[in-house]
Amino acid sequence: MGEHKAEVAPRAAALGVAVLGCGSVGSQVVRLLEEQAADLEARIGARVELRGVAVRRLDAPREVEVPEGLLTTDAQGLVSRDDVDLVIEVIGGIEPARSLVLTALEHGASVVTANKALLAEDGPTLYEAAERAGRDLYYEAAVAGAIPILRPLRESLAGDKVTRVLGIVNGTTNFVLDKMDTTGAGFAEALEEAQELGYAEADPTADVEGFDAAAKAAILASLAFHSRVTANDVHREGISEVTAADVASAREMGAVVKLLAIAELTDGAVAVRVHPAMIPRSHPLASVREAFNAVFVESEAAGQLMFYGPGAGGAPTASAVLGDLVTVARNRLAGTRGAGESAYAAREVLPMGRTVTRYHVAIDVDDRAGVLAAVATAFAEQDVSIQTVRQEGRDEDAQLVVVSHRATDAQLSATVEAVRAMPFVREVTSVMRVEGEGE
Amino acid sequence: MGEHKAEVAPRAAALGVAVLGCGSVGSQVVRLLEEQAADLEARIGARVELRGVAVRRLDAPREVEVPEGLLTTDAQGLVSRDDVDLVIEVIGGIEPARSLVLTALEHGASVVTANKALLAEDGPTLYEAAERAGRDLYYEAAVAGAIPILRPLRESLAGDKVTRVLGIVNGTTNFVLDKMDTTGAGFAEALEEAQELGYAEADPTADVEGFDAAAKAAILASLAFHSRVTANDVHREGISEVTAADVASAREMGAVVKLLAIAELTDGAVAVRVHPAMIPRSHPLASVREAFNAVFVESEAAGQLMFYGPGAGGAPTASAVLGDLVTVARNRLAGTRGAGESAYAAREVLPMGRTVTRYHVAIDVDDRAGVLAAVATAFAEQDVSIQTVRQEGRDEDAQLVVVSHRATDAQLSATVEAVRAMPFVREVTSVMRVEGEGE
Repeated sequence: MGEHKAEVAPRAAALGVAVLGCGSVGSQVVRLLEEQAADLEARIGARVELRGVAVRRLDAPREVEVPEGLLTTDAQGLVSRDDVDLVIEVIGGIEPARSLVLTALEHGASVVTANKALLAEDGPTLYEAAERAGRDLYYEAAVAGAIPILRPLRESLAGDKVTRVLGIVNGTTNFVLDKMDTTGAGFAEALEEAQELGYAEADPTADVEGFDAAAKAAILASLAFHSRVTANDVHREGISEVTAADVASAREMGAVVKLLAIAELTDGAVAVRVHPAMIPRSHPLASVREAFNAVFVESEAAGQLMFYGPGAGGAPTASAVLGDLVTVARNRLAGTRGAGESAYAAREVLPMGRTVTRYHVAIDVDDRAGVLAAVATAFAEQDVSIQTVRQEGRDEDAQLVVVSHRATDAQLSATVEAVRAMPFVREVTSVMRVEGEGE
Repeated sequence: MGEHKAEVAPRAAALGVAVLGCGSVGSQVVRLLEEQAADLEARIGARVELRGVAVRRLDAPREVEVPEGLLTTDAQGLVSRDDVDLVIEVIGGIEPARSLVLTALEHGASVVTANKALLAEDGPTLYEAAERAGRDLYYEAAVAGAIPILRPLRESLAGDKVTRVLGIVNGTTNFVLDKMDTTGAGFAEALEEAQELGYAEADPTADVEGFDAAAKAAILASLAFHSRVTANDVHREGISEVTAADVASAREMGAVVKLLAIAELTDGAVAVRVHPAMIPRSHPLASVREAFNAVFVESEAAGQLMFYGPGAGGAPTASAVLGDLVTVARNRLAGTRGAGESAYAAREVLPMGRTVTRYHVAIDVDDRAGVLAAVATAFAEQDVSIQTVRQEGRDEDAQLVVVSHRATDAQLSATVEAVRAMPFVREVTSVMRVEGEGE
């Protein structure tokens, strides 16, 4: 709580900037720093001077020409320099990024980072270091690429109470699910197309198994609820088991399957999870196509807000980095810090079993009398109320599609286990959570 | 340019707030100030104390109970008080709002306003007064209600270059057009339904003729392009002449009709306009339903971003006001100002005739040979290139639907005039601009 007035004035009429990393994002940052130099000076009120660009190898090929003498492999030396006021970290990964950010803050620099993995694993350490140093730590680019979500959550909604955040925060999985929805393809086929088009990596695990989305979910939950959630707190399920039948079943009920990062506040506790879910086609998130990202925010006074844009890419991410740079530079010139990380609430993180959600369950059953009644009884025994049942005869067998009302995940999964064990149940063909609707 | 460091420290450990107006927004502001008092104190770093609420009549019914002794009819006296640090103006309209805001700034208060009409008519006067006073003037609530758009444009994209803003910024007209699209109703019928449901006023002129959207377009253009655009600069067409046939014709080409507020930067000049337009159903703005608002932003580095949410309503607007309040209060405690209005570019505002757009034109013609060739010639004579033509025979006559490539509005309207005068043309049944697509 309270205001953190930094007593240090800018070290010079110009602000010194160090860029760590010169890959797809770093090279765009260097390019924009040069191209937008005059605009940046006008908006900040001081010149921004590039002091150095730290890279692993001097002779690696890169997308931008770095001015003579500014490339260095000594990143620690660069962030320790007295004439570096602002450090932009776009290396990614945990180390050496963490050590470099901590060194930069200790030496009095403000930091802008795009590093979701680092923030999700060890955000609190970084926030505390920034606070101790009286410096800014901004990270708009770490969640949902260029989409401005940090400022809306930190500042625009500062007088409101956010209750829930639903995000499509991984472009690869959204591309794959969108393909499955529009073409009827299965997961493997859609993934292959994504790989061919460059939307998925050769090893797509981090994306399709939800690790990337889980890191972003942790950051979103921390921001939205002024709490400290790390990636370990996030329940995670990927999309590799989503079938063409799931997608078709969603379509039949006017829904679409999306991989959602969900953070909710329930009685003061935080629930954070990443899993595929069906959402109604009328929901704003349903229209997020291809590799785009979007973050849907529910708050008490503002109601429903959505922020949409490219979730990745060198130039979009660099745009977010530069936006942070302008704010951090202005704060520095004014001798102040931005709306901070200081007012934190210690919040319980709910285990998945206690999280409240809804299930869509498709079951192949023998087509005989009493089946529907027996299934309904299984739901009732776990105290799960049913919203709709659709029954379709198919030759000798039939399919039941049940959508529940809200219940805890533990109740719902126990119900599914009970149903699976019933003698007339041939197979539970699809189990998926339903989000983005009322009760 | 440069930084505006206010030398005045907060006048007390607590910040004094005056609220001007206690209608649907003001009463929600007063309610939130009370309900969120503890959270606001934590986020700001100082208590916020309500010093007074200015109203026109003390005995009018209101939605919130204002604490004893705080209601006053002396607004000028209230904003001149030494113990008022922050003034929230939610009266609306030009006067007395303008005088009160200017008096507040002169007396050293920072101002948060939701007043789009005032900003669109006389924004520059207010910005200059704030700058002279070294105080903040924030107005997130004035455009698109609770949707955070001011901060993204001012701050998040500060290192990028915005090239175009397309907004659905009027909920009433979006509700009417959405009804027409989903039910096939005509304008009058859809408007009547909107009025019955409270989405349109008894006199709907300000909404349906685009005046409200034009005011917001001026503010958006000013923000996006760091320029000074007023409502008078905005070319304005409403939706009262949109027909069921227009909407059906849009549907046939996979598009939907929306009232768009458009601000574009072309060779350093600004073009600002409000008119109905067809946009493809795959465009993110197409999925903005009912009375929701959204602002779609195109920028060089970030690409395409969209901000979606409720465009009006007491609680959503109050949420935006409170978000501004937190920022302004923090700036005040830090003795600084927010990213400012100072770096302005004097930009030419293009007349509508020079604005570049595309037309969709539906024409009833006699069904005889040579008609298509003659129409195509009329387009070619104005140097307007045709993207698609659809020809449908209907008994003795036929309908031609032509969609052009991009050309100036002057060329396009001259083309339509030429077509209208052709002997075999029975009627030009629909002329509408097409937006949200490539060239």
